[in-house]
Amino acid sequence: MPEPSTKQIAIVLYPGLTPLDLVGPLQALSAIPRVDPTYEVMVVGETLDPLLSDSVVSLAPSHTFDDATSPFAIVVPGGGDPTLRAAGHKPLVDYVAEAGAHAEIVMSVCTGAIILATAGFLQGRRATTHWAYTDVLENLGVDVVRARWVEDDKYLTTAGVSAGIDGGIHLVQRLLGDDVAKLTQLGMQYEPEPPLGEIDWDPAIIEAVRPIWRPPLADILATHPHLDPRVSRLPA
Amino acid sequence: MPEPSTKQIAIVLYPGLTPLDLVGPLQALSAIPRVDPTYEVMVVGETLDPLLSDSVVSLAPSHTFDDATSPFAIVVPGGGDPTLRAAGHKPLVDYVAEAGAHAEIVMSVCTGAIILATAGFLQGRRATTHWAYTDVLENLGVDVVRARWVEDDKYLTTAGVSAGIDGGIHLVQRLLGDDVAKLTQLGMQYEPEPPLGEIDWDPAIIEAVRPIWRPPLADILATHPHLDPRVSRLPA
Repeated sequence: MPEPSTKQIAIVLYPGLTPLDLVGPLQALSAIPRVDPTYEVMVVGETLDPLLSDSVVSLAPSHTFDDATSPFAIVVPGGGDPTLRAAGHKPLVDYVAEAGAHAEIVMSVCTGAIILATAGFLQGRRATTHWAYTDVLENLGVDVVRARWVEDDKYLTTAGVSAGIDGGIHLVQRLLGDDVAKLTQLGMQYEPEPPLGEIDWDPAIIEAVRPIWRPPLADILATHPHLDPRVSRLPA
Repeated sequence: MPEPSTKQIAIVLYPGLTPLDLVGPLQALSAIPRVDPTYEVMVVGETLDPLLSDSVVSLAPSHTFDDATSPFAIVVPGGGDPTLRAAGHKPLVDYVAEAGAHAEIVMSVCTGAIILATAGFLQGRRATTHWAYTDVLENLGVDVVRARWVEDDKYLTTAGVSAGIDGGIHLVQRLLGDDVAKLTQLGMQYEPEPPLGEIDWDPAIIEAVRPIWRPPLADILATHPHLDPRVSRLPA
């Protein structure tokens, strides 16, 4: 396999992912090759076919897994139930495992961390994920931290969905410095103003609404037979 | 033409748009039909074909313009040069003009406001757009305001790119109330943390980098012969 002529940043597309999980970091990282053309940003899928996301838009990749077997960086977006299904889909997990093993940066957004963990990464490391899935990631042997993004060695994981924007800008900063990261933020006019202010992390609210986003652990394993059984540490 | 059986929220897809401009509001608005199924969220294109965005992902719509001729709401995303081209593409502008005329809400993200203005909306109204394009929108007779989002009658316009997330959550709040909007924010884990803090709006920096995002007004008209000539008020 010849070495790629560019430092590839491969963002992984799979069926049913949450589109902002992919587009958030893509939007930030797209600035990188414009400033330094030794980098290349790619969206990679098992095939080039458009795939339905978990909302009413379909996304099509620019390349296939075979075009990016030795990427400089790999980015795995997340989602809900379809991401758990993806974490049990061997061609995807094998690609992430092989591409990630040699990559200098292995990043996830949201529950993409569950795919990283089932691919053999993150064990015993500090990482983060969507708030509703922290127990799933813990069961896979990860030291889950509540933070917007977490870096541990070559692993960069972010919190849920929108956190991929912050993680993406952080990666631009890490690779090309503050000035390029500031220009990226300016281009995206990223001066967020959540209409209702900060999230209220009242534990009573969180526990009440968790079932909206995540089925019970027993149901996860029952409906995803190919998933790593450590995802749900069921009573014997 | 029969009345649609749902209150359609039609997000307009066209070639070369900035993907976060579309996916940001889509991600927020997707919560609406889950809570109130009398609403339907659609991504509409001239055809169902996937279209390349201005980064390396292609997007495919769920419906065509013909499926949403009388939407409850229409949302027009923006982008750079391809959005100016779209503002001179008659089938798109005609669709926005006709669908928007009867819609109860007409929304734009970023330079989508330029498409709204060339479709005959926003004249004499308060509106906003991406910071690098404020003069283009002013030349189209719009009272441009610097704000994250602006509401004037049925028109809801947002600032650049990432502002569609805030504008989308605001629209959820307006249609379904604070509780649903908070739940939407929680699902997206939208607690933004820009790595470099707030944007530095130093006018010297802004003027220095403006040409990266926007060609000079004379060049815009020269390279977009079908565009409304008011876009650039050239000296006689």
